[in-house]
Amino acid sequence: MLTDAIAQYQNRINHFLEQQLACLPDHATDLKSAMQHGALLGGKRIRPFLVYSVGDMLGVSLDKLDICAAAIECIHAYSLIHDDLPAMDDDDLRRGQPTVHIAFDEATAILAGDALQTLAFEILSGDTEFTPQQQLAMICSVSKAAGYLGMCGGQAIDLASTDKQIDLDRLTQLHALKTGALISCSVELAIIAADANDADRASLMKYAQSLGLAFQVQDDILDITSSTEELGKPQGSDEESNKSTFPQLLGLQGAQQTATQLIEDALSALSKLPYNTQLIEQFAQYIVARRV
Amino acid sequence: MLTDAIAQYQNRINHFLEQQLACLPDHATDLKSAMQHGALLGGKRIRPFLVYSVGDMLGVSLDKLDICAAAIECIHAYSLIHDDLPAMDDDDLRRGQPTVHIAFDEATAILAGDALQTLAFEILSGDTEFTPQQQLAMICSVSKAAGYLGMCGGQAIDLASTDKQIDLDRLTQLHALKTGALISCSVELAIIAADANDADRASLMKYAQSLGLAFQVQDDILDITSSTEELGKPQGSDEESNKSTFPQLLGLQGAQQTATQLIEDALSALSKLPYNTQLIEQFAQYIVARRV
Repeated sequence: MLTDAIAQYQNRINHFLEQQLACLPDHATDLKSAMQHGALLGGKRIRPFLVYSVGDMLGVSLDKLDICAAAIECIHAYSLIHDDLPAMDDDDLRRGQPTVHIAFDEATAILAGDALQTLAFEILSGDTEFTPQQQLAMICSVSKAAGYLGMCGGQAIDLASTDKQIDLDRLTQLHALKTGALISCSVELAIIAADANDADRASLMKYAQSLGLAFQVQDDILDITSSTEELGKPQGSDEESNKSTFPQLLGLQGAQQTATQLIEDALSALSKLPYNTQLIEQFAQYIVARRV
Repeated sequence: MLTDAIAQYQNRINHFLEQQLACLPDHATDLKSAMQHGALLGGKRIRPFLVYSVGDMLGVSLDKLDICAAAIECIHAYSLIHDDLPAMDDDDLRRGQPTVHIAFDEATAILAGDALQTLAFEILSGDTEFTPQQQLAMICSVSKAAGYLGMCGGQAIDLASTDKQIDLDRLTQLHALKTGALISCSVELAIIAADANDADRASLMKYAQSLGLAFQVQDDILDITSSTEELGKPQGSDEESNKSTFPQLLGLQGAQQTATQLIEDALSALSKLPYNTQLIEQFAQYIVARRV
């Protein structure tokens, strides 16, 4: 059931993003191709999955949710393009494919990231079936999650923490902002789309926060326990780039226990909800069971 | 009168942006400083001037216009930070000061640009005195002007045109997107803020389009007729980087005639408006008379 839903939502968002990008005019074909390369390179589509699965659980049609899923994935795709640049993580490969600055060039990669960020807000502010109030709330949520208060702030903490020992609180803050903010935002977009009440919102946001941190802890674990082939990027790259990780601060077993505890927290938050939460429960378990 | 208004609006936007950036929390101080460096480095503040002067002419209070002026200037500031990067124009100086990647480093400059773009949308989607419909229309306008359909698209055409001869139509398209889109958007934000009628909108957008192109033609002229000291950046940099320019395609005199004609078009569009257009007329004349 989970595997089917993941595949279904992956197909759905890939198709929708493909359409959105294909209908851009052709005045700057290199940039358009680079945006397509960056946004359509595959990937687990975890953020769209959360938008669709939580939104569907709350009774919102998938058609309405497409723009939310697309916006959050545009932000994620832009962040990966910029993250891979030589001045940042300097990665040549992502998901086994050349990164955007390798397939094109650095200048085009910078612009493709920039334009994908803008596209997220263009999609959210266009004609939709939501009320203007809902659209505004979505834009507010995405901008807070993506900017200095969220992802960009987390990336800056990451830069400042490289080659430096940081403590668990700072590492947790780093990831709460760098990856957690967008994951929480994905759930929040579904909440806004459904006009969910405050109690449901609180439970779902607690789920999202625990899930987001668990995802990162598991990522750190996989970086030392998976092969380069499984990861589609060099194994051990965190250690090589002198980044603090959860296994380094807690030991491998400690990190694994933390991930398990976080998932228990996520599931316990769901237990308060009057909905069929089976799919998003399974998803939380998958997050720490995955090998890639 | 024009000089006073320019100085007044410069002070106003500098103060407002300073406040917006100062109230960001301090979890990533390097990034915050880099955003401040990029956004508060000075500059003519042409886009805020247009927001304030057109909005004021249409009867909107300056207090309400602050967020529009700040959003458009955040987008402009982000584009300059990314434009100056080694992989793009590779400029060490802007307005006589070190560019962001020189004062900080490349990674921080990329993030500062990214976060300033997001900040524009955060400002526009926050609590304001506008209706949700107006806010959405503003976000839609800024995202179209900033992204692939506007500024980023124009920058990509610029990249693709370097070391290549392009014709006047393509050069005009390049600049209509690269600089014209944000200038038109500044005027459009004031139009949306005032809920102006269609006739006024059409005249003002015609003014903005002519002004935007005139601004770029004059920039090209200044690149060959002003000194490095006046410009605050190396004189002759367009020729050195093998970029097509209006003087190169039309001759210096032809380019000057084009700029003059564009300003006449801009003024003629204003003549249809039932408002006191004196200030924005003077501004159009200043655009082609300026030396920096």
